Amino acid sequence: MPDHHEILNFLLLLALIVAAAKGAGWLSLRLGQPAVLGELLAGVVLGPSLLDLLHLSPFVGEGMAAGVFLLANVGVVLLMFIAGLETDLEQMRRVGRVAVAAGVAGVVVPLLLGLAVALLFGFGVQKSAFMGIVLTATSVSITVQTLIELRQLDSKEGTTLLGAAVVDDVIALVVLSVFVAVSLAGGSGLADVGVVLMRMAAFFIGAILLGRLFRPSLSRAKRAPVSEGLLAATLIAVLAYAWSAEALGGVAAITGAYLAGVLVARAGYRQEVEHRLKAFTYALLVPIFFVSVGLQANARTLAAQDIPLALLIILAAVAGKVVGCGAGARLAGFTGPEALRIGVGMISRGEVGLIIAAIGLQTGLLGERGFAIMVIMVLATTVITPPLLRAVFPAAPPSEEAAIEAAFADPDDPH
Amino acid sequence: MPDHHEILNFLLLLALIVAAAKGAGWLSLRLGQPAVLGELLAGVVLGPSLLDLLHLSPFVGEGMAAGVFLLANVGVVLLMFIAGLETDLEQMRRVGRVAVAAGVAGVVVPLLLGLAVALLFGFGVQKSAFMGIVLTATSVSITVQTLIELRQLDSKEGTTLLGAAVVDDVIALVVLSVFVAVSLAGGSGLADVGVVLMRMAAFFIGAILLGRLFRPSLSRAKRAPVSEGLLAATLIAVLAYAWSAEALGGVAAITGAYLAGVLVARAGYRQEVEHRLKAFTYALLVPIFFVSVGLQANARTLAAQDIPLALLIILAAVAGKVVGCGAGARLAGFTGPEALRIGVGMISRGEVGLIIAAIGLQTGLLGERGFAIMVIMVLATTVITPPLLRAVFPAAPPSEEAAIEAAFADPDDPH
Repeated sequence: MPDHHEILNFLLLLALIVAAAKGAGWLSLRLGQPAVLGELLAGVVLGPSLLDLLHLSPFVGEGMAAGVFLLANVGVVLLMFIAGLETDLEQMRRVGRVAVAAGVAGVVVPLLLGLAVALLFGFGVQKSAFMGIVLTATSVSITVQTLIELRQLDSKEGTTLLGAAVVDDVIALVVLSVFVAVSLAGGSGLADVGVVLMRMAAFFIGAILLGRLFRPSLSRAKRAPVSEGLLAATLIAVLAYAWSAEALGGVAAITGAYLAGVLVARAGYRQEVEHRLKAFTYALLVPIFFVSVGLQANARTLAAQDIPLALLIILAAVAGKVVGCGAGARLAGFTGPEALRIGVGMISRGEVGLIIAAIGLQTGLLGERGFAIMVIMVLATTVITPPLLRAVFPAAPPSEEAAIEAAFADPDDPH
Repeated sequence: MPDHHEILNFLLLLALIVAAAKGAGWLSLRLGQPAVLGELLAGVVLGPSLLDLLHLSPFVGEGMAAGVFLLANVGVVLLMFIAGLETDLEQMRRVGRVAVAAGVAGVVVPLLLGLAVALLFGFGVQKSAFMGIVLTATSVSITVQTLIELRQLDSKEGTTLLGAAVVDDVIALVVLSVFVAVSLAGGSGLADVGVVLMRMAAFFIGAILLGRLFRPSLSRAKRAPVSEGLLAATLIAVLAYAWSAEALGGVAAITGAYLAGVLVARAGYRQEVEHRLKAFTYALLVPIFFVSVGLQANARTLAAQDIPLALLIILAAVAGKVVGCGAGARLAGFTGPEALRIGVGMISRGEVGLIIAAIGLQTGLLGERGFAIMVIMVLATTVITPPLLRAVFPAAPPSEEAAIEAAFADPDDPH
C-alpha cells in the first residue's frame, strides 16, 4: 500500500500531467496544429527524453508510476469503448463498397511497406511485422477537424472517409489480435494460426451472445436504486470484455472494449452512456494516456543513424495510406482526384497508432527503439495531414460560422 | 512500469470491485438497509478479513494494489470536492444559529466521549484523540434518504439537519487538520500549535485569494478549443488545492478539495462541473473507495476482548451525537422533541468518517486495530440511523409517490 506521502504526491503528479497535456494542446491549436501534437510532445518533454518526471525521486515512488500507467490504460480502454459506441454501422452500410475497398487496401499496403523498411534496417521479422501493424491504424479525428474547416465533411469523400476509417480500425484490430496471439503463443505454424483463429471466433460469438443475453441487465441496472447503476454496469461490462478478450479469446483487450461499445450502442444506450462517460475520460484519462506515451518514449535510445530509418518509416506511413486507400477507392469506382482525397484523409495515425505501439512495448513485441520511432511517425503524420488535405480538397469560401464551429468541435474526438 | 499481464488483470480487478460494491449496495437496499452498508461489507469480504483479494498472487501484483489505493484516494478527493460544490452557504445562513450550535456541540461531545473510551481501553493519547476525531464526522446522506421516505426533508428539522451537517463537516475538517499538522510536526507545545494555526490561516487566505485571481481562467478554459477545457481546469485546481493544502498549509488534503468545491460553486460553475464529474465518480471511484476501506480493515487484528471496546465506541458515537447535537439545538431554542430529531439525524457517519479513518491509517495516527474498530462503528451507525429516525419523527401518510421518489434518489449522495 502506498504511504500517505506518496498518495499526496500522486495528486500533484496528476495535476501536473493534465495541466501539461491540456496546456500544450491549447498552445498547439493556437499555432494552427492539432491538439494531439501538443499533448504528445508534453509527454515527451516530461519523459525520459528530457525531464524524466517519473524518476525524480524522492518525489515519485514506484507505486505512483504504476498508478499513472494503470490509469492511462483504463483511459485507453474507455477511449476504444467510446470509439465502439460511436461506430455508425448504418453509415458504413451506406458508403459500403468504397469504404471497404479503401479500408482493406489501406491496411495491407502500409503493413507491407512498414515491414519492408524495418527488415531493410536489420530489425527481426517479429519487430518488423509489428512496426508494419502500427502503420495500419488510422485516426480520422484530425481529418474531421480539417474537413469541418473546409466545409467538406458532408461531401462524398468526407462520408466515405469516416466509413473507411472504421473498416480500417476493425481490420487493424483483427490483424493486431491475430499477430499478438500467435506471437505470444510462441508458435508460427499454420496449425497454431488455425487454433488462434478458432479461439478468437469463439470469443466473438460468445461475447456477442452474452451481450444479447445481458441486454436486459442494462435496463435493470438503469432502474436500480443504486447510484449511477447504468454507468456502473456498463463500466463493469467494458472492463470485463477488455480483460476476457485477451485472457480468454487471445484478442487484444482494446478489441474487447471496442466490441463492448458497439454492443452498448446497439442496445440503445449510446447517448446516455457517452454523455456520462466522455467528459471525465477526455478531461483526465486521455491526457494521462497521451503523456504516458511520451513518458515511455525515450528519444535517447535513438542514434543519429536512426534518422534515415525514421524518415523512411514516415514515408512508408504516408505512401502506404495514399497509395493503398487511394487505389482501393479508385478500383471501387471513385475518380482519381476523389481517390487521392480519401488516401490523404487517412494519413494521420493519432491515438489508435499510439495504443497499438504501447501494446507492442508492453508485450515486448516492438522494443524501445521501435516504439520511439513509432511515436515520431505518429507526430509526423499528425502534422502533415491538415496542410496536405487543404491542398487536395477544393477550397471552400471561408465563413465565420465554419471557423467558430471548428474551434468548438471536440479536437480529441476519435471519430 | 507494470507489465502487460498486470495491466490486463488490473482491468478485471476494477470490474470485480465495482461489481461487488454495486451488487452488495443493491442487495442492501433490497433488504431495507442503506446502500453504503453493502458497499462497505463487500470490501470487508474481499479484504484480508476473509478473501484477501489483494494478495491472491499471481493474479495481483504490487503495482495493482497501489493502483487501487491511488484511485480510491482520487475518489475521496473528488467526493470531498463534490461535497464542497454542494455546500449551500445561503441555506446555512438561513438556518444559522441552531445549525451552528448543533454542529459545534456535535463535534465536541463525540470527540470527548471517543477519547475517553479509547483512553479507558489503554490506547495512547494520540490514537485515542484520533478515534475521537473520527467520531466527529457526520454524513447525512442516509438521514436524507430516510427523511424523503417520511416526507420530512423540507421540515424545520430537515433543513436544520442539512445546515448542521455542513457546520459539523467544516469543524471536523479543521480539527482533523490541526491535529494531523501538530502530530506530524512532532510537537505538542502551545508555540507549535500557534505556528500550525498561522500556517493554516495563511493557506486558507492564499487559497481563497488565488481562487479569486484564477476565476477568469475557468471561463477562459471553458471557451478554449481543447476538449473538456472547463472540467480539465477544474480537476487541475482540485488536485492542486488538495496537494497544497497538506504539503504547504499543513491542512488535510480533503479540506483543500472541499475548499476548491466551495470556490468553484461560488464562481458559478456548480451545475456544469457537477454534471460532468458526478456520474463517473459515483459509478467507478466511490465504489472503489468503499471497497478499499474494507480491503484495509482486517477483522483478524481484533480479538474477543475488543468486543466491549467496539460496543462502547458505538455507544459513544451514538450518544455523542444525540446528546451533543440535541443539547446544542435545545439551547439554541428548539423544543425537546425537535432537538432529539436533530441529534438522531446526525448519528450516521458514512463516507466522511471513513475518509478520516483512512487518513489515520495512512499517517499511522490511528493504527490497524483502531481503524478496524472505526469501520465497525461506521457500519453500526449506518444501520441504526434509519429505524431510529422513523421512531422519533412523526409518521407521514405513506404514499406511492414518495416511495418512488425515495427509490430513485441518489443513495450515495453525501449531502
